[in-house]
Amino acid sequence: MSSPNVTRTGSGNGQGLSPADSTFTTQPFPSSRKVYVEGTLPGVRVPMREISLTPSPVASTRRNNEQRVPGATGPRSASGEAPSPNPAVTVYDTSGPYTDPTVTIDVRKGLPPMRRDWILDRNDVEELPDVSSEYGRLRAADPKLAELRFRHIRKPLRAKPGMNVTQMHYARKGVITPEMEYIAIRENQSRELALEHASNRHGGGQPGGTARLSFQHPGQAWGARIPARITPGFVRDEVARGRAIIPANINHPESEPMIIGRNFLVKINANIGNSAVASSIEEEVEKMVWAIRWGADTVMDLSTGKNIHETREWILRNAPVPIGTVPIYQALEKVGGKAEELTWEIYRDTLIEQAEQGVDYFTIHAGVRLRYVPLTANRMTGIVSRGGSIHAKWCLAHHEENFAYMHFEEICEIMKAYDVSFSLGDGLRPGSIADANDEAQFAELETLGELTKIAWKHDVQVMIEGPGHVPMHLIQVNMEKQLAACHEAPFYTLGPLTTDIAPGYDHITSGIGAAMIGWYGCAMLCYVTPKEHLGLPNKDDVKAGVIAYKIAAHAADLAKGHPGAQERDNALSKARFEFRWEDQFNLSLDPDTARAYHDATLPDNAAKVAHFCSMCGPHFCSMKITQDVRDYAAKKHLDEQEAIRIGMQEKSEEFRKAGAEIYL
Amino acid sequence: MSSPNVTRTGSGNGQGLSPADSTFTTQPFPSSRKVYVEGTLPGVRVPMREISLTPSPVASTRRNNEQRVPGATGPRSASGEAPSPNPAVTVYDTSGPYTDPTVTIDVRKGLPPMRRDWILDRNDVEELPDVSSEYGRLRAADPKLAELRFRHIRKPLRAKPGMNVTQMHYARKGVITPEMEYIAIRENQSRELALEHASNRHGGGQPGGTARLSFQHPGQAWGARIPARITPGFVRDEVARGRAIIPANINHPESEPMIIGRNFLVKINANIGNSAVASSIEEEVEKMVWAIRWGADTVMDLSTGKNIHETREWILRNAPVPIGTVPIYQALEKVGGKAEELTWEIYRDTLIEQAEQGVDYFTIHAGVRLRYVPLTANRMTGIVSRGGSIHAKWCLAHHEENFAYMHFEEICEIMKAYDVSFSLGDGLRPGSIADANDEAQFAELETLGELTKIAWKHDVQVMIEGPGHVPMHLIQVNMEKQLAACHEAPFYTLGPLTTDIAPGYDHITSGIGAAMIGWYGCAMLCYVTPKEHLGLPNKDDVKAGVIAYKIAAHAADLAKGHPGAQERDNALSKARFEFRWEDQFNLSLDPDTARAYHDATLPDNAAKVAHFCSMCGPHFCSMKITQDVRDYAAKKHLDEQEAIRIGMQEKSEEFRKAGAEIYL
Repeated sequence: MSSPNVTRTGSGNGQGLSPADSTFTTQPFPSSRKVYVEGTLPGVRVPMREISLTPSPVASTRRNNEQRVPGATGPRSASGEAPSPNPAVTVYDTSGPYTDPTVTIDVRKGLPPMRRDWILDRNDVEELPDVSSEYGRLRAADPKLAELRFRHIRKPLRAKPGMNVTQMHYARKGVITPEMEYIAIRENQSRELALEHASNRHGGGQPGGTARLSFQHPGQAWGARIPARITPGFVRDEVARGRAIIPANINHPESEPMIIGRNFLVKINANIGNSAVASSIEEEVEKMVWAIRWGADTVMDLSTGKNIHETREWILRNAPVPIGTVPIYQALEKVGGKAEELTWEIYRDTLIEQAEQGVDYFTIHAGVRLRYVPLTANRMTGIVSRGGSIHAKWCLAHHEENFAYMHFEEICEIMKAYDVSFSLGDGLRPGSIADANDEAQFAELETLGELTKIAWKHDVQVMIEGPGHVPMHLIQVNMEKQLAACHEAPFYTLGPLTTDIAPGYDHITSGIGAAMIGWYGCAMLCYVTPKEHLGLPNKDDVKAGVIAYKIAAHAADLAKGHPGAQERDNALSKARFEFRWEDQFNLSLDPDTARAYHDATLPDNAAKVAHFCSMCGPHFCSMKITQDVRDYAAKKHLDEQEAIRIGMQEKSEEFRKAGAEIYL
Repeated sequence: MSSPNVTRTGSGNGQGLSPADSTFTTQPFPSSRKVYVEGTLPGVRVPMREISLTPSPVASTRRNNEQRVPGATGPRSASGEAPSPNPAVTVYDTSGPYTDPTVTIDVRKGLPPMRRDWILDRNDVEELPDVSSEYGRLRAADPKLAELRFRHIRKPLRAKPGMNVTQMHYARKGVITPEMEYIAIRENQSRELALEHASNRHGGGQPGGTARLSFQHPGQAWGARIPARITPGFVRDEVARGRAIIPANINHPESEPMIIGRNFLVKINANIGNSAVASSIEEEVEKMVWAIRWGADTVMDLSTGKNIHETREWILRNAPVPIGTVPIYQALEKVGGKAEELTWEIYRDTLIEQAEQGVDYFTIHAGVRLRYVPLTANRMTGIVSRGGSIHAKWCLAHHEENFAYMHFEEICEIMKAYDVSFSLGDGLRPGSIADANDEAQFAELETLGELTKIAWKHDVQVMIEGPGHVPMHLIQVNMEKQLAACHEAPFYTLGPLTTDIAPGYDHITSGIGAAMIGWYGCAMLCYVTPKEHLGLPNKDDVKAGVIAYKIAAHAADLAKGHPGAQERDNALSKARFEFRWEDQFNLSLDPDTARAYHDATLPDNAAKVAHFCSMCGPHFCSMKITQDVRDYAAKKHLDEQEAIRIGMQEKSEEFRKAGAEIYL
């Protein structure tokens, strides 16, 4: 891949950029650097974030003494012993070029089209002379939009007649695409280390040494089959099988390939959008940049209002993550908000319009069938999905079957011409605890399973959306039914919220459910912000939602026993145990907040509750006692119980003589 | 019970109160009133909070039209149909007299000693002429403390020689104490309604009507046996069996009885303390008042520093909830922070000192046995319990067994003379994901089980403390092992945190684990604030921790199928569905935040995503369609499929004629 050829905003180069450009967040994370891992296929160069750590102190007692000696701050202790280095921790990085200080960002030009050569090299696409959608042409021709419009719009690509350009199609033909290799490298990070030391829990070395650092609980994966090492072939096979998707529209070459599937890391999505005024296009782009900075793996643009089309173009051209949309929202705008005036033709034109812009996945509520609408009659909260209620209203107004259901095969034809993935919407998801797991919900799920088969017939990628509001004990059955009904297509759930009684805190009520369903096998978790049910999220809410969901996804990876997932926990806990505060901050999901909280109260040493090992140091730590006790027992042929008694006595005398008084 | 006889602060009565008094939070919750339910035993008068609701609109369509007509805001619609009232929702209330506007609060006098007559009437106690502890007498005699000291210290009560005053002792004798009846009423609220309509999910009536409101999922209780109705006899039996405890020191008559046990509502604890300076006694009392306002069922005072004794007195005299402490913290202060200088005598004196002040439960780390210390040697984070590391250090310094273990029966003698409950501390709990469920942790748990049996021999109440840091898939085995090893004594866990990587957000990492272990059977959840691992929590952190844990506890109650637990969710969801915003705020755990978030963005009507029922209204809701379709099918002998087709056609024509355009 050629190095990014863009200019940096906010660098005061006087090129007449608007002040808004400088609001994009581009700082790297503290003590972190962007590293790129090269693949074997041309242009495969996978970004990761490497967090460097400080060395461990030689001995906690000595370190504590040093703290009392002003000036003794060098990396080497007074005794001359070298401190023990800690290996850098490499983490999955969704933030794209924005956190790479060697890349200059110009949102008006967009990100480099990294995947474009891969797409063209496959020789299955053609460049169209103009956009195919009627609406897209109308917008392009409207001089009033000149100011709003992104200025470097490429001509759209589309599959040549008769060709299918989906990653699933290539996978089924046995092809390993560069996207697949990219993903294998991306998903695979940390695993080599994990493998080397697998199940080496009680291996020798110092407490918290390398062996300890790589210890990981085996996990309970509920039938997921996560290999010890992700190979490009495994990625291909999972995509071919439909068990994972790679949302990668050929018209969104800026996106860094990622995968959504139960045998990979659990992903999260952040929703942005809803701005109707021109001045907020920058705000929406910044919300996207902000969401991926904190860890959003995909972003859904749910914008409504007058300039949806232009807003989406800006977001796509600057997004290194897949972008999803709900096309029915825009279709509804086109008919002035009157659901009954929607037509298949308007919807179809919207799908093509968005596919040619580069949207990577579409939420399509084709499962909201006419016959299911009455099943929601006795619900506490009826139909709460916006898309679901639009389709339901249309069905009632026309006494006809849902047009998205009726024209599903035609939709597949569109999807496969651009490689847009289905996110089959759960229009009948429960909107309250009372409505969880009811007949309407599961009837729709069965239909989504049928539609999955149809999509797969066309080699079109599919994931399935899920609830919603579900009490904890009913979460697992959601996962089980989805796997069974939808043939293991990846599940993508909103929460679920585990109680309805905490508006203002629904990132927490839903974070609980999200962690659990992620553990049970959900492939992607759609975030919920604290403003859910109450208002529109601002940047703080977006961050709160993303962090809560990174926690949920990571907790799920740990519980599944995802290889290497525990490395970051181990490194952070070791830093915590050794009072390496800066490392603790830098390893955390949100270094800024961790540092700010620490600095806010500046606890004195008494507040830093002592640990056993920092209390006694390596020369008198309990591990050493154990080791000595073992040697002693072997030498004296004592049973271990007796050896402990004698060993402890000797050691405690030593301890008292040393006069170590470290904590409080 | 006589009505509270105290004076109100902040009322400008000019009685020379210090300005600090006015900082105590005493406002009632919005649209809420304190109600008291009388028992049969004298003085049993149980406070609850009743949230009144506004009526439902007659029809959503009409309501929407009304919104467009300025002035049409009366409770009766233009058509003359009466709006449908919504029953008030009664919720468990931990806030004590502070939220009762008819009670005047004077923190310098303390709360009324509500339970004192009950305690004296049992005729098993004697009033001592002076405090028994040496340290207590020293503090009382120190003139320098006059300014700090609470001015209305009662003489301590103690069991008469040979008597046992624990609730467990009474329960085992078959006595139903007023405390038990109080608890039965308190736990029982909402159940009558729930019972009346149990499993009435598809009962008739309007959507979200009374039948719907009382619908509840059956739940999965993992072996907990929660009766449909809590009787005083059930409370007694559970306490007698040791499966629940009533922390109720005879010297803390201000506390409103509550119960901790797996067959009751899941409880939460908030920690306060750590202030060493005199001026912050008020701050600590206010933190307690603040914590119980948001829902803390018990509060642990973990104060350190010079005036622990006096701070504790202020907290106890003003606390309507049980107060717990970790006496080893104060004992350590008494020996200048030198763990090896601790003695059994100093510890014993501390237990008596605190028992006579009225502490309701003691964390006692008697399970940290000398032989277990080496088991922590290979850990990632050694011993992270402060109490655990103090005992471990003492053990090592003296090469002797833990004095709390050695003198456990003597401790029981103290506990039963005042009815202090054991909270057997998990000094060897894991402090990181890596250390979860290891040998040290479970070895200690076995010992806690042995100690439970000894305590029960003395009719002393026991709960067991638990971890800590545990990945999701290892949580349930913690609960199972605890139940087995500790003979079903209630479990009381800190979190557990499900990942280590989010300092600054550990109320969320741990809220996930807390919800799950609460579901599996944990009786009380010790909160974790966002400042965990980083600094000392302020009031905002206390609130964030309490709310996160109320969410966890309530999600657990729902998942267990606790009778009546879903009532609040149902009422809130119904309010949400009907756009009764004020009711939605008032029913939430934190009405202030819900309202503020809503007001911050003031979403217009388009942002209030439409629901099916608000779209079509009761005259054309899908339920009515279903009903009509059924009638139609019966009349015409059509199969339902065909009936739906024809019925939908008729209804959709009706719908279009009505021109209902409600959302967007």
